[in-house]
Amino acid sequence: MKTSQIPFRTLREAPAEAIIASHQLMMRADLIRKLGNGLYTYMPLGLKAYRKVEGIIKDELNKSGALEFKPTVIVPGEIWKESGRWETMGPQMLKAKNRGDQDMVVSPTAEEAYTAICRAGLTSYKQLPINMYQINTKYRDEIRPRYGVMRGREFNMMDGYTLNANDESLDESYQGYAKAYHRIFKRLGLKVIPVKADTGAMGGSGSEEFMVESPVGDDTLILCPKCGYAANVEKASCRPDPALDDSGKPQAKTDLPFEEVATPNVFSIEDMEKFFGTTSKRFVKALIYRVINSSLDLTGTAGADKLKRVKEGDFEFYPVSYVCVLIRGDLDVNEAKLAGLLKASEVCLADDEEVVAMSGAPHGFVGPVKLNCPIVQDLSVNDMHDAFAGAGKEGFHIKHVEPGRDFTAWKNADVRTVKSGDKCCCEGCDGEYYTTKGNELGHIFKLGKKYTQSMGVTYLDENGKAAVPTMGCYGIGVDRVLASIIESFHDDKGIQWPMSVAPFQVAIVPIKYKDAMKDAADKLYDELTAAGIEVLLDDRDERPGVKFNDMDLLGFPVRITVGDKNLPNVEVKIRNQAEASLVPLTEAGAKVADIVRSALAELNAV
Amino acid sequence: MKTSQIPFRTLREAPAEAIIASHQLMMRADLIRKLGNGLYTYMPLGLKAYRKVEGIIKDELNKSGALEFKPTVIVPGEIWKESGRWETMGPQMLKAKNRGDQDMVVSPTAEEAYTAICRAGLTSYKQLPINMYQINTKYRDEIRPRYGVMRGREFNMMDGYTLNANDESLDESYQGYAKAYHRIFKRLGLKVIPVKADTGAMGGSGSEEFMVESPVGDDTLILCPKCGYAANVEKASCRPDPALDDSGKPQAKTDLPFEEVATPNVFSIEDMEKFFGTTSKRFVKALIYRVINSSLDLTGTAGADKLKRVKEGDFEFYPVSYVCVLIRGDLDVNEAKLAGLLKASEVCLADDEEVVAMSGAPHGFVGPVKLNCPIVQDLSVNDMHDAFAGAGKEGFHIKHVEPGRDFTAWKNADVRTVKSGDKCCCEGCDGEYYTTKGNELGHIFKLGKKYTQSMGVTYLDENGKAAVPTMGCYGIGVDRVLASIIESFHDDKGIQWPMSVAPFQVAIVPIKYKDAMKDAADKLYDELTAAGIEVLLDDRDERPGVKFNDMDLLGFPVRITVGDKNLPNVEVKIRNQAEASLVPLTEAGAKVADIVRSALAELNAV
Repeated sequence: MKTSQIPFRTLREAPAEAIIASHQLMMRADLIRKLGNGLYTYMPLGLKAYRKVEGIIKDELNKSGALEFKPTVIVPGEIWKESGRWETMGPQMLKAKNRGDQDMVVSPTAEEAYTAICRAGLTSYKQLPINMYQINTKYRDEIRPRYGVMRGREFNMMDGYTLNANDESLDESYQGYAKAYHRIFKRLGLKVIPVKADTGAMGGSGSEEFMVESPVGDDTLILCPKCGYAANVEKASCRPDPALDDSGKPQAKTDLPFEEVATPNVFSIEDMEKFFGTTSKRFVKALIYRVINSSLDLTGTAGADKLKRVKEGDFEFYPVSYVCVLIRGDLDVNEAKLAGLLKASEVCLADDEEVVAMSGAPHGFVGPVKLNCPIVQDLSVNDMHDAFAGAGKEGFHIKHVEPGRDFTAWKNADVRTVKSGDKCCCEGCDGEYYTTKGNELGHIFKLGKKYTQSMGVTYLDENGKAAVPTMGCYGIGVDRVLASIIESFHDDKGIQWPMSVAPFQVAIVPIKYKDAMKDAADKLYDELTAAGIEVLLDDRDERPGVKFNDMDLLGFPVRITVGDKNLPNVEVKIRNQAEASLVPLTEAGAKVADIVRSALAELNAV
Repeated sequence: MKTSQIPFRTLREAPAEAIIASHQLMMRADLIRKLGNGLYTYMPLGLKAYRKVEGIIKDELNKSGALEFKPTVIVPGEIWKESGRWETMGPQMLKAKNRGDQDMVVSPTAEEAYTAICRAGLTSYKQLPINMYQINTKYRDEIRPRYGVMRGREFNMMDGYTLNANDESLDESYQGYAKAYHRIFKRLGLKVIPVKADTGAMGGSGSEEFMVESPVGDDTLILCPKCGYAANVEKASCRPDPALDDSGKPQAKTDLPFEEVATPNVFSIEDMEKFFGTTSKRFVKALIYRVINSSLDLTGTAGADKLKRVKEGDFEFYPVSYVCVLIRGDLDVNEAKLAGLLKASEVCLADDEEVVAMSGAPHGFVGPVKLNCPIVQDLSVNDMHDAFAGAGKEGFHIKHVEPGRDFTAWKNADVRTVKSGDKCCCEGCDGEYYTTKGNELGHIFKLGKKYTQSMGVTYLDENGKAAVPTMGCYGIGVDRVLASIIESFHDDKGIQWPMSVAPFQVAIVPIKYKDAMKDAADKLYDELTAAGIEVLLDDRDERPGVKFNDMDLLGFPVRITVGDKNLPNVEVKIRNQAEASLVPLTEAGAKVADIVRSALAELNAV
């Protein structure tokens, strides 16, 4: 193809709102144009790269045995009401009324559609597993869409779903997607870190995110340099570190009973350190949390008799309940881990009124004794002794506190936020964690029966008995992958496409498109095209500098410059190498074809 | 691929609501599943066929020089307000408010998006023409979606658009699409009839529809068996036929003045024929039409001083005006042609009150004399003499009417509805039209400056002067094409896919998938797959009859049956031929590969 056939114009400056490299470069190279807030059109050159990403995803998923299907983008609100997400998805879901006054949804994701579609035809265990994916338009009405296609409102996502007869089958499907993902990202040239993730509000039993390191990442990753452990901070664990006293020795047990101390102006951990002249490691921090939709049974715990328990189908839960979390004073509570422990859709710090009602004291003086709600004790509190804590009474703290003696936990669990410097949780590893920012490109997720149960999917198992299938879901953000490739591969001149994604693999730039230069350029173009190489010939009547800059900005992996001065040699330059080399025109085609093929072979290698 | 890997189940009976063959067969073969009214999911086998249609469309458009782009499906209502279609598209447009209370539209078509996108980057004539297309999700909230994917609410459409510097360039783009369409439909095995179409509410100067004959078609086509003339009835012309008297001779001029006759109970043409004892060919039918948004200048015509003329930008029009159409009594007025003549968005018969206001008489007695609105005289009235007409006074008609003497036309034009038996309008052709029903599969359309003007698109021409580009739009309904292929190619057993669209080209059916039959089937499968043929192996543990019926229903072009009885021969059967033939296993692979390749070559032949 020739540049004159392509409607593009490059920009020296990206619009001010573009603050990350991929957004800036995609705008400058005219790969995308903005149609509205969070709404980007792919222009022909951008779409070529996009389609290559899509093609590699499809190819690997097809090879893995997944089948492409295509639900509609607009779906009836009805199925979202069946699953219960009509309410819980909130305002990010774009809803419309059709002319019959029926609720319609612009799909933000397709668990409901997949479940409804499969339900219609499922009768026997023989049909399972069912493994289908789509790459289709999604819409989420993000409050603050940003970073171009990295976080748009309309976006394109590969979403795959499996229906499985049992956990073993689900695990097989899950591993199949994991394997395909590794192949996909390898072929795209991206280094991804698979991290254990929180299963969050989606519910479910296993989840892995495929992250790419990025300074503009939304997620914090916890990584062990020694054993390779990687987890999202929302899920990460660490080895418990001993509770130490002020001299660095393990805290020693006391036989003294706990004792109230008037602390009228002591509100924070810092205040306590100053007042008691010791470190925060000796304080038992007590925090009251409001818990939404917990399905744990609280019968017999403090205050449980006053809680409302609701039953929806087979699912029983407390719309609102409360717990007090105890944790060592130098540590923070990880709300995602806490919500997971409590099988809750959400947890958040209780408000002032609730804190007083549950603990008898305002925030700052909450203590583990005489609480009106169950205690969740973080593992960090287990070996604390002779500790300090709130007294459960405004203006007072207590000292000589002994866990186990002075209070008893309802749950004893790991709910701390892991941070840089914590010890790796893996057996036999003594690595120390570091953290990095990451962007999620893909996700695999064991959903379990959340949707199949609520939407009433059954099949007859081998014994002729009705059974509910279990489900997995798997996603890759296609636009985000494309943007991440640019984030990973660019320099100050522009994009440096990996060979597998480049809109064109080779750019031929004649200094002037006429006479001998035109002949040589045309000859090379024909030769390379015949060899199956994707070539762009810059036939514009522009200064050479303009053409070089544009080709560098657009990021084609190989540039062949055809100039009067060098003929019968031409200049071959690899985009991400500084030096160019002169090659006889007669050999240039074969040489460049070889460069392209070698690069592709390396990316595609298993 | 093997049938056991594909989630499908065939049905003996289609749902009752499926009344056309393609809908029934697509449901029975599990190519689609319904997700809501007018909302169909493509299941894997259906999607394979769909993707082949899409692939052929893309391939031919790419070859023609069009470039794929991809606007968002959800677009800001803002651009629809700019073009003026926010109001005029009516309730078929699905609208939603985003969280910022901004109007959003689920695209029913993309003229606005294309215009807005190109406007952003257009500066110079050097960038023109711009020629881009997409294949993307569209949504129209049809009142009565029906016929499965033939007329769904969500559908997939190829929509291409060109921006051109002038009419010659537009014509070149238009012809480029026309040529590509012919190739596309040829490769899909479809016989299409390109017909001249009305440019309708879209505005514009040239339009051609690509129709496929179908008993369930939405359109009526006028066809000449002699010269091949083809037109949508909304646009068709015919050769004027002479106005004859009761003895079949041309009507003769009269010198008698027109004369009132009391006709108290004469309301219809039939009443007049009876009352005056003559044929309808001697009556001048006069009909008052209400005209919406006509941009013609009516200054100086009857009643024009009372009309409101509105100016929007450069565009001046009458929101409401009236005309009286005169036509020979045996003919009907074609409202599409009338609207075109009047450059109006719509025309319709005036209501009783309006008729009296304009003509002084109620419907049935309206006459050409003393009218309060301009006269549009159909060509059929030109050679009428000594005619009958309404008197413009309730209960009276007039006779001895002479056109030209007793009334004068404001416009004299062809506004009649052409019908079967009318004479072909082509020069030198004496064919007689016949009509047929057709379904529109594609459309090419010279839009002109409707959108570029209203949305303010300009560029600098060769003289450095600001100019407004002209525009073309081009569409193919992808789902409808797929359904039409099934309408054209099926029998009572199921679908008969053309080789270019079949989800699999060959089905291998072992009578039992074990022992020697399994070995032979596997060998054939490997051999054909290695030869690049798309093969489905039916490995299900079902009775042979079930498997044969399913494969016939699914419509794969070639079936190879592997049975104990016939080995070392296998049976090769072409789906649309009655007889099967026995072929040695050792030769079957090569023979079948040849059948597939020959069929493809024939479809792809230029």
